[in-house]
Amino acid sequence: MRTTDGYVKATGEAADRLVYDCDRTHRIGMPEAVFCLDKSAGDVALIVDRLVSSGVGPVLFTRMCQPQYEAAVNRSDAALDYDPLSQTAFLNGSMAKRNAHVGIVAAGTSDTTVALEAQRTLQFLGIGSQLHIDVGVAGLWRLVERVEELRHERVLIVVAGMDAALASVVGGLVGCPVIAVPTSTGYGAARNGETALNAMLASCAQGVVVTNIDNGFGAACAAARILVTA
Amino acid sequence: MRTTDGYVKATGEAADRLVYDCDRTHRIGMPEAVFCLDKSAGDVALIVDRLVSSGVGPVLFTRMCQPQYEAAVNRSDAALDYDPLSQTAFLNGSMAKRNAHVGIVAAGTSDTTVALEAQRTLQFLGIGSQLHIDVGVAGLWRLVERVEELRHERVLIVVAGMDAALASVVGGLVGCPVIAVPTSTGYGAARNGETALNAMLASCAQGVVVTNIDNGFGAACAAARILVTA
Amino acid sequence: MRTTDGYVKATGEAADRLVYDCDRTHRIGMPEAVFCLDKSAGDVALIVDRLVSSGVGPVLFTRMCQPQYEAAVNRSDAALDYDPLSQTAFLNGSMAKRNAHVGIVAAGTSDTTVALEAQRTLQFLGIGSQLHIDVGVAGLWRLVERVEELRHERVLIVVAGMDAALASVVGGLVGCPVIAVPTSTGYGAARNGETALNAMLASCAQGVVVTNIDNGFGAACAAARILVTA
Amino acid sequence: MRTTDGYVKATGEAADRLVYDCDRTHRIGMPEAVFCLDKSAGDVALIVDRLVSSGVGPVLFTRMCQPQYEAAVNRSDAALDYDPLSQTAFLNGSMAKRNAHVGIVAAGTSDTTVALEAQRTLQFLGIGSQLHIDVGVAGLWRLVERVEELRHERVLIVVAGMDAALASVVGGLVGCPVIAVPTSTGYGAARNGETALNAMLASCAQGVVVTNIDNGFGAACAAARILVTA
Amino acid sequence: MRTTDGYVKATGEAADRLVYDCDRTHRIGMPEAVFCLDKSAGDVALIVDRLVSSGVGPVLFTRMCQPQYEAAVNRSDAALDYDPLSQTAFLNGSMAKRNAHVGIVAAGTSDTTVALEAQRTLQFLGIGSQLHIDVGVAGLWRLVERVEELRHERVLIVVAGMDAALASVVGGLVGCPVIAVPTSTGYGAARNGETALNAMLASCAQGVVVTNIDNGFGAACAAARILVTA
Amino acid sequence: MRTTDGYVKATGEAADRLVYDCDRTHRIGMPEAVFCLDKSAGDVALIVDRLVSSGVGPVLFTRMCQPQYEAAVNRSDAALDYDPLSQTAFLNGSMAKRNAHVGIVAAGTSDTTVALEAQRTLQFLGIGSQLHIDVGVAGLWRLVERVEELRHERVLIVVAGMDAALASVVGGLVGCPVIAVPTSTGYGAARNGETALNAMLASCAQGVVVTNIDNGFGAACAAARILVTA
Amino acid sequence: MRTTDGYVKATGEAADRLVYDCDRTHRIGMPEAVFCLDKSAGDVALIVDRLVSSGVGPVLFTRMCQPQYEAAVNRSDAALDYDPLSQTAFLNGSMAKRNAHVGIVAAGTSDTTVALEAQRTLQFLGIGSQLHIDVGVAGLWRLVERVEELRHERVLIVVAGMDAALASVVGGLVGCPVIAVPTSTGYGAARNGETALNAMLASCAQGVVVTNIDNGFGAACAAARILVTA
Amino acid sequence: MRTTDGYVKATGEAADRLVYDCDRTHRIGMPEAVFCLDKSAGDVALIVDRLVSSGVGPVLFTRMCQPQYEAAVNRSDAALDYDPLSQTAFLNGSMAKRNAHVGIVAAGTSDTTVALEAQRTLQFLGIGSQLHIDVGVAGLWRLVERVEELRHERVLIVVAGMDAALASVVGGLVGCPVIAVPTSTGYGAARNGETALNAMLASCAQGVVVTNIDNGFGAACAAARILVTA
Repeated sequence: MRTTDGYVKATGEAADRLVYDCDRTHRIGMPEAVFCLDKSAGDVALIVDRLVSSGVGPVLFTRMCQPQYEAAVNRSDAALDYDPLSQTAFLNGSMAKRNAHVGIVAAGTSDTTVALEAQRTLQFLGIGSQLHIDVGVAGLWRLVERVEELRHERVLIVVAGMDAALASVVGGLVGCPVIAVPTSTGYGAARNGETALNAMLASCAQGVVVTNIDNGFGAACAAARILVTA
Repeated sequence: MRTTDGYVKATGEAADRLVYDCDRTHRIGMPEAVFCLDKSAGDVALIVDRLVSSGVGPVLFTRMCQPQYEAAVNRSDAALDYDPLSQTAFLNGSMAKRNAHVGIVAAGTSDTTVALEAQRTLQFLGIGSQLHIDVGVAGLWRLVERVEELRHERVLIVVAGMDAALASVVGGLVGCPVIAVPTSTGYGAARNGETALNAMLASCAQGVVVTNIDNGFGAACAAARILVTA
Repeated sequence: MRTTDGYVKATGEAADRLVYDCDRTHRIGMPEAVFCLDKSAGDVALIVDRLVSSGVGPVLFTRMCQPQYEAAVNRSDAALDYDPLSQTAFLNGSMAKRNAHVGIVAAGTSDTTVALEAQRTLQFLGIGSQLHIDVGVAGLWRLVERVEELRHERVLIVVAGMDAALASVVGGLVGCPVIAVPTSTGYGAARNGETALNAMLASCAQGVVVTNIDNGFGAACAAARILVTA
Repeated sequence: MRTTDGYVKATGEAADRLVYDCDRTHRIGMPEAVFCLDKSAGDVALIVDRLVSSGVGPVLFTRMCQPQYEAAVNRSDAALDYDPLSQTAFLNGSMAKRNAHVGIVAAGTSDTTVALEAQRTLQFLGIGSQLHIDVGVAGLWRLVERVEELRHERVLIVVAGMDAALASVVGGLVGCPVIAVPTSTGYGAARNGETALNAMLASCAQGVVVTNIDNGFGAACAAARILVTA
Repeated sequence: MRTTDGYVKATGEAADRLVYDCDRTHRIGMPEAVFCLDKSAGDVALIVDRLVSSGVGPVLFTRMCQPQYEAAVNRSDAALDYDPLSQTAFLNGSMAKRNAHVGIVAAGTSDTTVALEAQRTLQFLGIGSQLHIDVGVAGLWRLVERVEELRHERVLIVVAGMDAALASVVGGLVGCPVIAVPTSTGYGAARNGETALNAMLASCAQGVVVTNIDNGFGAACAAARILVTA
Repeated sequence: MRTTDGYVKATGEAADRLVYDCDRTHRIGMPEAVFCLDKSAGDVALIVDRLVSSGVGPVLFTRMCQPQYEAAVNRSDAALDYDPLSQTAFLNGSMAKRNAHVGIVAAGTSDTTVALEAQRTLQFLGIGSQLHIDVGVAGLWRLVERVEELRHERVLIVVAGMDAALASVVGGLVGCPVIAVPTSTGYGAARNGETALNAMLASCAQGVVVTNIDNGFGAACAAARILVTA
Repeated sequence: MRTTDGYVKATGEAADRLVYDCDRTHRIGMPEAVFCLDKSAGDVALIVDRLVSSGVGPVLFTRMCQPQYEAAVNRSDAALDYDPLSQTAFLNGSMAKRNAHVGIVAAGTSDTTVALEAQRTLQFLGIGSQLHIDVGVAGLWRLVERVEELRHERVLIVVAGMDAALASVVGGLVGCPVIAVPTSTGYGAARNGETALNAMLASCAQGVVVTNIDNGFGAACAAARILVTA
Repeated sequence: MRTTDGYVKATGEAADRLVYDCDRTHRIGMPEAVFCLDKSAGDVALIVDRLVSSGVGPVLFTRMCQPQYEAAVNRSDAALDYDPLSQTAFLNGSMAKRNAHVGIVAAGTSDTTVALEAQRTLQFLGIGSQLHIDVGVAGLWRLVERVEELRHERVLIVVAGMDAALASVVGGLVGCPVIAVPTSTGYGAARNGETALNAMLASCAQGVVVTNIDNGFGAACAAARILVTA
């Protein structure tokens, strides 16, 4: 995040060039989200300001860090529903609740923030969810004692880093769609999530699909595509 | 594929060790498939022979090349429904037809064999499909004139190599689940499908999910998970 | 950027060794630019000072951050035209205006700074430009409604990160030279811009050429080579 | 190239799905080319057959190996102008000659086939060219004695593998557009052309643009975009 | 494997330079093995010949393919105990039997040859073993029903490719030393065994150690180090 | 390590979801350790707090930095035995002493912290050890004069970065199990420990096994598996 | 560089384990150098202290940053000859002057610190040198006008980043030993010096040898090996 | 090596474009060598023919395989001194003998061909050499018993693959220039020689320099640069 004052001042012109894809909900059932990672606090504040002015419907912000949130509420007094753990914010509320539910399974406590990004995105999209954390396969009993519960879900999101073995074990135990989210936890051979990503792609359990590393948002959107069009 | 005679003769002992996961259909709704890529023609023939003897239900073989097919039918007189383009074979027929349908979109003619692996796998799983080949974004009109048709599908499989731009464009146009399959076509910077894989994972269209490179089989299984549990 | 005082003091001797390629404009039509990324604020200030003393013509500085700019103006009172968004500065003005124009197309707001580096470099080289931001292919209508306008440009610079699908779509729609600039936006499978780079190199649209990641400066120089020698 | 007979027989159905982008010349000034690398001899022969039947204008085939050429002429008696060194073929002649010329500079004799693919593509597009082979920088005099000649070209294509130093040296000597084509010559640290690719992208000469590894075709198309729209 | 006749004839001189580490059994309890992968059939035959002449004790050959074996027995009439599946040969018998035993667990039939290389190496070193093939975690019951048996082993070798999830699950279930051997099975994201290698190194089960890809020989030697010095 | 206050406050809910694998010591002879690297100071403090409340036996914390330690003792007054060099802490003491000993050999002083992580983990597991630092092969005499001493160890852990040649030399000199730990010391071609990792995996000394980069904890657990089950 | 106080205090024990290779000058003509990059300021200060106490001859410290230097002089009052630009320090003077000279050629000002590390190391080893900075091939005349001067050197060190073309051009112009040092300057495709490294290894100029990225120290030692044993 | 007849016939035109750097011996003391790896048998034969006609002095051919040699002697009756093991040929004899000598040390028999390429190149350049094969560090005594002999050499070339530990051990034992040549022997983590390359670059022995993978030719040229200019 770039924070130099001079930079922030000048960025207004760029934000004015924003072309929000206001037609997206109509086309694909979900609005465009604003990804804050590569933006300065000033950028984010300006974008919030412009969106407030334009009167769009609910908008989701992802990867919004605390200073970005503070810059936004300082500037435009926007009513942002911000959650620091998942780094998400809802502007102008969220979508209408649907009769849909997703199970989220995470291997370790280090995977929690990614799992929470998925959960918050589902909440924004009007979909309920149940979170199961710390069920990694090194203590297999933790997963086994929940298998029956997981078998009742319509969609499962599996969040795991390092060896990502959880995705293969879950994929071999349930028949519903399994969306695997690799995380960048670990060090060395974990290669910032690439090992988990590749292990999930090469999973011995058939029909497991994969999102980008740490992409809890994308997994939730994929679940929404499945549940909404069913 | 290893073909030395001495090797093939000795492999019988190994095939006898095969532990077919006969419970898988019960657990996840699809039988275990036999992946032939890393096996000799003799290996494959012996596995077919053992499966015929054991009286299992329908079994799908993937990446079965012509010599493997010939070795199998020579040995056991098995009634294999073999398709050389998709390199798939059905042993003991296929699963019962379901009222379910998938659209398959492929960017170029080089992606055909992967698209056909998906189509044959869907056929084996009792699911119908429609194939759209050669609709790459360099000639955007080819895709645009099919958009309405694609919007009626419950699930789309998008097969593309090189820049894999097709997945992002389709993901931005339709709201149903989009399963992206990168292919190993191209050369140099295409990096045997890794560029397509990464581009699909980093797609600007939200909620696109991805399978391994060239994994038409996996995409079809993912579609089945979606359609069967819906 | 190294900032230790001891370091900065000692660097004068090194700056004195500078051999500015004062003949470059004569040879290739553009002066040597000073790339500030790997230099300390003190280094940059000393280089500015030496160039001011030597009386060279207009010089472009790229990747100049705010502290480098401040160190330079503190030291030598140089008349630097500095732009913090694009991190560029002009010393001793810019080149004479030419009757030449370039279209710059950027996929998302995160790509703005790179697009602006291209625009400022073109301005320095005396070339006009028009910037189109936020026209990524996930909302295809945003690009489609500008196609006719883009078809009137003599050269297009396309700036995109992640899947970089925009370059292929644009390259299939227009016949003029398309210079693709991958950006390091995104995370995980975006691989700091390598995925965009490879996707652009493997583009299904023929004749698209590519620069280094985030190299808006290089794209502008390439456009100048095309326009000036035409 | 897959050559199993069973495969070739079945491929007809796939070729029938071919959607040739017949509008491309109208849009971008060049017809779609057929890239033969990932296709069987049977595939290529069928595609030639279909294109002959459909009565399209001139079509360029790239990466066409001898068996593919022979299969094509055996099947359809097509009048293919085939060149085995560049692995290119012209179907139904070539485009009208233009008053345009390109210089092609190659570092070593190992780069010849890529340079010839560029030259043949230019010939197909109606553009003349002059080829300079074996002017690598290890014997700098070979390049220096041609500099004046190169300075008269409107566009230069520089073909080099391994360290690819030639692109930087040429880019520092001339002001016209320089299109750099990395080649996959060499071994070990040459990394199948990736070192040349990266060295060209990171060239110290400003405004050099780059194509995919071994992509003489793409370089010629880029040159055509420059010359035709000038 | 290089097979040109001229080459084979000349190689004698090189083989004469062989410096067999005849002291190794004394130092580390195991003799030097001859790795045949990068050697021509002629090279291997000459080495066998020299070793027969020198009267060394038992020698193990690994990665010996059928033509290498045939060249060796043709030349020197050596009494080689050759096994084509594991590509191993014993020259001058094997080491004395020890009261030691190892369990070998392999995820799929494609991992068999690597598992057999481990088993044959153990046999050469005088150590017994039990092989469990096809117990991959996609069908978890196959492993679970053997856990008690595995818990009685002093050392376990776990052989798996692709996601290599088996190593983590086994490592969480048993307390004995677990030596994980990644295999090069699979395609695409399996990356010739690198994904399995990295997943095993980043295993969530503590204290799992890893060998090179496909290195059944190394795993057996590691087991011997453990069992012999216990 | 994330330190924003808002974040730390919200993390309590996540820590409450912790499912500690309290059965692990029973299954594999060692308790689950808490890996602190990807956790905030607040996360770690909460986990310590929960574990203290739950009354578990001794627990090892690895990669615990000073601020994490301070947050933990501030919150719960837990009796943590913390060592800042190895970044380890013991909660509720350590396991009972065993009659077992390990030799630890490190190539340079830069490898010390990793070697100390191994030593502290062994201490926690009740196993004694002797540390030999700065015995890299560039000064071979330093290793040679200790060889006899090393030959009396039941297990050796070899810690080395960069070229990691020490593992191969030690592996050729002793017959006991050799557990190689690559470290991320060095720069450039050391590639953050990958070169050492690969060199150890490809060691010319047979039966050397390897852990993840910088994983002194894992090496100690592997040694415990060997010594405890012997 | 780790700076936590607790850490620094504890590190004394580790430094006491230091085994300085005091015999190295006798064996290879150069003393062991102390590489400071992975060490805390406290570590370095302790090592200086121990070396002062032990009374060794001249010792070179490389990659010593300002805080390390300050910690060292604060602690032990050691007479360190420190140079902040090259981040080197001499303890107890330097080696006796020799009648030997090296030419150092650097492509750009960004390569200066690496070139200075080489120059200072040569000075420590008693060898004179001449530095030529900013002679990159994009302005070829800057190199050409110095060729005659360079031809009089006994050894040349060539320092360059990005495309590293300078090494190939120099290697083709002079017959003396050319030691190429890749630098980590640049961004994107420069890949932190890997592109320069590979380009130098794959140089078209025969007999150029290469050191690690940014390893000016190593290049100077290589030059010393050449000059001292000549 | 491409061998299609059509290809070979057409290649004459390309060979005619050959610009042999006949001035190189004058500039750098060694003639240009012809690298045959990426050339067809026909290409090589034509080049030999042209060089014979042009009456140049001695020329070295490297990586010349048997069919290339046979094509060359069939065509032009050239007096080639061909060695199939090192894949080198001398045309028109070799350079005058010099009073210079090099020691070549190779880790294993698999490294022999690379070591022989170095030896033959030295022979061509008029320099004598002594070859020591199979002295890998897993059996350290083999190296130790030759150390005194190696200490009398003016230059050492060290050839090793996999962990390449030999280069570091030798570099720590002798003071003369050490030129390390990584080889592509081994499998898996050996990564076709990259692991050896990186290990040599990151060697803990100071002043070791490195060539490209398998580049025995380059090492010999580097030795010649050292010995000739001394």
